[in-house]
Amino acid sequence: MSQLVRVQCFCVSRDGFGAGEGQSLERPFGHADPADLASWAGATASWVNRTEPGGTRGLDDYMTRDHQNNIGAEIMGRNKFGPQRGPWENYEWQGWWGDTPPFHTPVFVLTHHPRPSFTLADTTFHFLDATPAEALARAKEAAGGKDVRLGGGVATLRAFLEADLVDTLHIAVAPVDLGRGERLWKSPAELLDRFHLEEIPSPSGITHLLFWRR
Amino acid sequence: MSQLVRVQCFCVSRDGFGAGEGQSLERPFGHADPADLASWAGATASWVNRTEPGGTRGLDDYMTRDHQNNIGAEIMGRNKFGPQRGPWENYEWQGWWGDTPPFHTPVFVLTHHPRPSFTLADTTFHFLDATPAEALARAKEAAGGKDVRLGGGVATLRAFLEADLVDTLHIAVAPVDLGRGERLWKSPAELLDRFHLEEIPSPSGITHLLFWRR
Repeated sequence: MSQLVRVQCFCVSRDGFGAGEGQSLERPFGHADPADLASWAGATASWVNRTEPGGTRGLDDYMTRDHQNNIGAEIMGRNKFGPQRGPWENYEWQGWWGDTPPFHTPVFVLTHHPRPSFTLADTTFHFLDATPAEALARAKEAAGGKDVRLGGGVATLRAFLEADLVDTLHIAVAPVDLGRGERLWKSPAELLDRFHLEEIPSPSGITHLLFWRR
Repeated sequence: MSQLVRVQCFCVSRDGFGAGEGQSLERPFGHADPADLASWAGATASWVNRTEPGGTRGLDDYMTRDHQNNIGAEIMGRNKFGPQRGPWENYEWQGWWGDTPPFHTPVFVLTHHPRPSFTLADTTFHFLDATPAEALARAKEAAGGKDVRLGGGVATLRAFLEADLVDTLHIAVAPVDLGRGERLWKSPAELLDRFHLEEIPSPSGITHLLFWRR
């Protein structure tokens, strides 16, 4: 089985925004309330950031469980890694995730401003000024035969879709409209020329969109 | 995280039968056509018995992918292992699955007629004349911290449910009526005193029932 490039548990609003306008340290999702987009995931037993027992084990849990399943590396954009733009003033910022990031694999951060790699617990962050295809080659090598997760944000997903490098996508559509921000699409129909699509409504109110290559 | 006891991808008819009447070597599911119950699983990319590339990667694939995910041992009844009843005439029968069974873990077969363990590829079959609780203790030990899958058939599932030893169930309901055979339930509502239930219709025509403990 070849290595897949997978998007898992990427949350967007009903009108297609993955983040609101005005990302900052205090508001990683800009004017959007991250709970509106992602609380469905936090409610499940298998969510990577869960620290206490409990949680639901229905459909949404299958989705969060698969987030990590057979993943050997992640690729993310700089705007997922942090709120800074432009050259690094220093290297103090080590991501939003504290001392134990929930990745547990190598993570490749796409940026025009590379900086030295560093390791937190069992996650090592590497910084690449590279095309999607170049970054993917590095990530596949690091993944040791497992799949590569494309972590977002929206600009990174769009760049990889544009380069036709994505095999499967799980997009969770939240029942909220954002109106402005980082937009993944106007409609999921934009991908139907290249992907099969199943639309699965969840009892939680989320709709799971599952895409795979035609 | 404690070890769970999970039922995964167990297929029943709309009227609750997991197998038809009259199991035999030629007809492991009796008068039922196994394709009616299980072809949804065979169509997916992750189905354990898939030998060729391809297959769907929608909702049903999440279900077949989870069949093996974090499983360290399986418990099954003798009627899943083979068509014979009563004392073994010899030990030639080694299951329905050929030289490379799709389990890849220890398998514990419940029977009143134990026989010596044997290994095919990376699957070892053990035979236990034991209560569900005793068998589960053995399987949990063998699972090395991973979960235990309860593989069926119906009588084994009912015995473990009766003993209140099941944590989660994924039951796939096929759009067919069997009328007679091995019956899991008259209605899934029978389990609602102890389990949460989500009913998720799949585009394939199957309905996935996901149960977890209250």
